[in-house]
Amino acid sequence: MKTQVAIVGAGPAGLLLGHLLRAEGLEVVVVERSSADYVLGRIRAGVLETTLTDLLDRLGLGARMHAEGLPHDGFNLADGERLIRIDVGALTGRQVMVYGQTEVTRDLMDAADARGLEVIYEASDVALHDIESDAPYLTYEKDGAQHRIDARFICGCDGYHGPSRKAMPASVAQSFEKVYPFGWLGILADVPPCNHELIYANHANGFALASMRSATRSRYYIQVPLDEKLEDWPDDRLWDELAVRLGPDAAAHMTRGPALEKSIAPLRSFVFEPMRHGSLFLAGDSAHIVPPTGAKGLNLAASDVAYLSDALIRWFKANDGAGIAGYSDKALARVWKSERFSWQLTNLMHRFPGRDAFDRRMQLADLDYIASSVAAQTTIAENYVGLPL
Amino acid sequence: MKTQVAIVGAGPAGLLLGHLLRAEGLEVVVVERSSADYVLGRIRAGVLETTLTDLLDRLGLGARMHAEGLPHDGFNLADGERLIRIDVGALTGRQVMVYGQTEVTRDLMDAADARGLEVIYEASDVALHDIESDAPYLTYEKDGAQHRIDARFICGCDGYHGPSRKAMPASVAQSFEKVYPFGWLGILADVPPCNHELIYANHANGFALASMRSATRSRYYIQVPLDEKLEDWPDDRLWDELAVRLGPDAAAHMTRGPALEKSIAPLRSFVFEPMRHGSLFLAGDSAHIVPPTGAKGLNLAASDVAYLSDALIRWFKANDGAGIAGYSDKALARVWKSERFSWQLTNLMHRFPGRDAFDRRMQLADLDYIASSVAAQTTIAENYVGLPL
Repeated sequence: MKTQVAIVGAGPAGLLLGHLLRAEGLEVVVVERSSADYVLGRIRAGVLETTLTDLLDRLGLGARMHAEGLPHDGFNLADGERLIRIDVGALTGRQVMVYGQTEVTRDLMDAADARGLEVIYEASDVALHDIESDAPYLTYEKDGAQHRIDARFICGCDGYHGPSRKAMPASVAQSFEKVYPFGWLGILADVPPCNHELIYANHANGFALASMRSATRSRYYIQVPLDEKLEDWPDDRLWDELAVRLGPDAAAHMTRGPALEKSIAPLRSFVFEPMRHGSLFLAGDSAHIVPPTGAKGLNLAASDVAYLSDALIRWFKANDGAGIAGYSDKALARVWKSERFSWQLTNLMHRFPGRDAFDRRMQLADLDYIASSVAAQTTIAENYVGLPL
Repeated sequence: MKTQVAIVGAGPAGLLLGHLLRAEGLEVVVVERSSADYVLGRIRAGVLETTLTDLLDRLGLGARMHAEGLPHDGFNLADGERLIRIDVGALTGRQVMVYGQTEVTRDLMDAADARGLEVIYEASDVALHDIESDAPYLTYEKDGAQHRIDARFICGCDGYHGPSRKAMPASVAQSFEKVYPFGWLGILADVPPCNHELIYANHANGFALASMRSATRSRYYIQVPLDEKLEDWPDDRLWDELAVRLGPDAAAHMTRGPALEKSIAPLRSFVFEPMRHGSLFLAGDSAHIVPPTGAKGLNLAASDVAYLSDALIRWFKANDGAGIAGYSDKALARVWKSERFSWQLTNLMHRFPGRDAFDRRMQLADLDYIASSVAAQTTIAENYVGLPL
């Protein structure tokens, strides 16, 4: 098979990129290792910047999001004694949209056929070839047969574990990584949220987050040691601990319910440079991971895709190579700023083993300063809604 | 001898407090371990917030400062590639005053006699007694004789090493400390500054600071390991390293000259709680130390003294104890915010042994974000000119 752009990975980054290129008439094929159902089964973040919602609207695929999503004008930081509301709407004039990543992916999947976006699921052993040439190609196995897709460009939207980043030659590659000494134990339940906005809490016991996917589905997290066992956290114990860490007011409004999903995820900061080499581009988690604090992961994939789709469209439609030449630097400048925000919010809100009483007071002083300063609240708000493209 | 308020320490905090109390007619005695010349010989910071300049003006002691000091509307952060100017004037509507701590101390000393502020220099073995009673007293030795001063209150303005903090009973005391794995090697020289505003530089070799005391006297610093030997830094080597770290533009405007003073100072964050117990109050370095990054040490002493003088005047003149009851909490709230700022600016601008490539990128991303965000610049500016009292 021959196409203009081959995309590896049918998560939200790959599908969004595919739709944006198809909307301009480019030939695109997406290959995905898993089944569509598996992709939809992954529970991920659910706070969308306008960076992403604008792209969905541009594609005409935002209808369900606007009908079912929850626009939020603010969120809260809790320091154990009070809620510090970050009035994102008043401080930035913008909103975020609470709408699950799974739902975004479903909307993009559902529109694929009608828009001629070919997605090949269950393509195993995907491999990238000749990425330093003008004629790179993918190979994969499906239904017991070997397949090959020739393309002008390959876009790796295949996440942290996918083959695309690994296809970059070691001689050009540089990786930056920070692994955090704790994880997030998350619970998804069909109960109304305890607050109409998110609460990020820094309690003496550790971090907690109250969030939601909808008016009837809640998503809560607590910080736990990395070696914590899921079986040590029956639902009741988890709800009890959430009530303690989120504080009495949130606890009074918290509805408990059985876990639809419960899991422990590690936290990591990771950046790979460059995001383009030869005919291969990386976008989203294949090039960078942020800790979930601040919900930047999906949004950062969206800004990569915004830059990359523009660059590829300029190349194919206007014979203009400036976009693809500048993609890596442009994307990385925003990536590093989002990495900074996610890292700083993670540092502000978690208990770190080995840190001392002075460090703890610095967290509390930071929260106290934020509570007192419009400028400090604005820095958080402008990062939360997403820095300009 | 009997007085209303006995002050330990004739540095700028003790003298300022003494003058403020005398201006309201209170009886005050200051005792100081060293000679006046020794106190004046200590080289310290020289960037004054309006917190301090307002107090000097209120006392009518600001004339020389306004004549000889340099009002500054901004300062610069350098990241190795560019100067990021923090336009303090435009962002906050305020200025800072560059005027050496030594000069402030001299102005306060010179006015003491005329205003009836008694200062006893070279008082050795100062000891505090009965601080939990309403009749505390000081003892000291001078000219071979023992002396005693009875007072209603004792104010400890005697710095980190003085006896006042040590007089607090261990049962009420709590200390918080952070020692940094580097020091500042400083040079004072009678040469014009390389820039009309301060430059804080984060270079790959480590931190550097270009500052000044006047239009003809410069003060420069570089970060060095704690075990560095002064004799390994002859003037030429230090000027060479400053030129590298401050960057080509600053280097081109740098005038070299012989060192009037050259020394290595460790960096420390320290807070002692509470700042009052019984009849004893602490103010300034006796209760807290900040690293010099951001020049908060003297200014924080000034805000302590502003709170404490108001509290004591209310007590003696209006028989109102609310000020002295609330002093410790009120002062500490501002102390912790200044500790936070000094710690964060220290973290942003220095190379820390043991930190990795990701941490380095976080510093550069932070600087890049600051360069791009008015809100981020405002947070720095509002702390630099001093948070409201």
